[in-house]
Amino acid sequence: MSIIIDRLAVIGVGLIGGSFACALREAGAVGTIIGIDSDPENLKKALELGIIDRIACCTAEGVESADVVFISIPVCSIPALVREIVPFLKPGCIVTDGGSVKAVIVRECEEVMPPRNFFVGGHPIAGTEHSGAAAAFPSLYRGKRCILTPTAGSDINATQIIIRLWQATGADVCTMEPEHHDRIFAEISHLPHIVAYALVHAVGTADVEGENVLSYSAGGFRDFTRIASSDPVMWRDIALMNRGALLKSIDGFSASLAELRKRIVDSDAEGMNSFFTRAKEFRDGIL
Amino acid sequence: MSIIIDRLAVIGVGLIGGSFACALREAGAVGTIIGIDSDPENLKKALELGIIDRIACCTAEGVESADVVFISIPVCSIPALVREIVPFLKPGCIVTDGGSVKAVIVRECEEVMPPRNFFVGGHPIAGTEHSGAAAAFPSLYRGKRCILTPTAGSDINATQIIIRLWQATGADVCTMEPEHHDRIFAEISHLPHIVAYALVHAVGTADVEGENVLSYSAGGFRDFTRIASSDPVMWRDIALMNRGALLKSIDGFSASLAELRKRIVDSDAEGMNSFFTRAKEFRDGIL
Repeated sequence: MSIIIDRLAVIGVGLIGGSFACALREAGAVGTIIGIDSDPENLKKALELGIIDRIACCTAEGVESADVVFISIPVCSIPALVREIVPFLKPGCIVTDGGSVKAVIVRECEEVMPPRNFFVGGHPIAGTEHSGAAAAFPSLYRGKRCILTPTAGSDINATQIIIRLWQATGADVCTMEPEHHDRIFAEISHLPHIVAYALVHAVGTADVEGENVLSYSAGGFRDFTRIASSDPVMWRDIALMNRGALLKSIDGFSASLAELRKRIVDSDAEGMNSFFTRAKEFRDGIL
Repeated sequence: MSIIIDRLAVIGVGLIGGSFACALREAGAVGTIIGIDSDPENLKKALELGIIDRIACCTAEGVESADVVFISIPVCSIPALVREIVPFLKPGCIVTDGGSVKAVIVRECEEVMPPRNFFVGGHPIAGTEHSGAAAAFPSLYRGKRCILTPTAGSDINATQIIIRLWQATGADVCTMEPEHHDRIFAEISHLPHIVAYALVHAVGTADVEGENVLSYSAGGFRDFTRIASSDPVMWRDIALMNRGALLKSIDGFSASLAELRKRIVDSDAEGMNSFFTRAKEFRDGIL
């Protein structure tokens, strides 16, 4: 593959940012990769592992020569960081991100972008339970979906470059409106996390004659609640940034649970059976 | 190990009943094992695999010489089956089961038990996603918990024999009140299934501009919702049989979800963080 851009700056060289860097290097799609991270130990590790070519002296110096800046930090911090780096970007530099929420980020980042610079929102649907530069690997995105959210105001050439970079990592790229992205991920990802946290909280605090109910958990409960072991700060940020769509999803779920509860109250065997069967069909359909 | 009983009748020779039979045979704890099942093909398979020694001509003939009858069929059907077999049991025969719900079963079965026969409720905490005699294996219960629910009216010797049989399978046996069992399993097992079914139903029917939201599912959603692929009839039965405790658990969960929802509505970052952190601590505690 021929080179797509000369200089890439990665802000947040963890699993997502580090794997983006590794994959592009392996594909020969970038020249130099500069790493920026709030954790100096993590940056040192990234340099040792060859994920980045050098550590930036500071954020401003790290981004000033970059053709593309990739940001992978907790979603709430992205708009402020973009405001901070804008004065240092060279003309034509494209800023993109890997956050799980898009509408707020895209709106706030587009607002502060000067005419000579471009913002393209992105969200790779990939991950593992590990984090940090040591967890990064070049095939993380291979065959996985990456959603980009250009808007009516996005520069076509800038979007094309970000598409080509993600394609170079092996990802299947698709594009959609930021708000549409947020409604889909409110349902398929953010809602399940909220439900898992609420469930573990409820079972953990349930008072069954003073017994520790969790000590009776078996494989089903463990699988079901694994996502409640996710990073609280990351999910707090996502809930704050996708509040509207998430509340709508929670209310849809509560209505679904209330419907099932009513069938249980009524001892409606046929009604329960059809509810469970329909859910099972949905679930078996995604295997 | 020396023999504990001479003749065991197993009604429902599937994963649970078949594995109970295999394990006891391997331990040398029983003499003859007689199989009874509504599915003749499954019984033939159980005979071929050596799980049972012979197929009963009919239910009455199958139980009449048994020292212990083990019942592993959908929970709603257990009390009626016990009523049906009672006239044919020899004096001293002990009837036990492997159902996931205990209070209703124990009450109804104790009621119909003649003075010369005994009922001991049981629930092994083990299973796989497979079913039928072909899925049975002798080590299924090894190191797993088995809960027995003798009551004030239970015969001590009968309970001892059932404890010894389960210990012979390698299970760790504990005993508790049937109602206590049902409250614990409403929380740790029945509630998560209800929540998983409600969640998949909600996401599957969510209308996001006509898009199939489920097509965006990744590993987290699949793990989280695996239990929504469980058998609808089994879970309908469990919901019917443990209705009271389950409704209480659902309401506890709904209160927990409402509390978290309020923190999201209020954009209460600190409140969300502490909720998620507490849930994560509960979850990490069971790893």
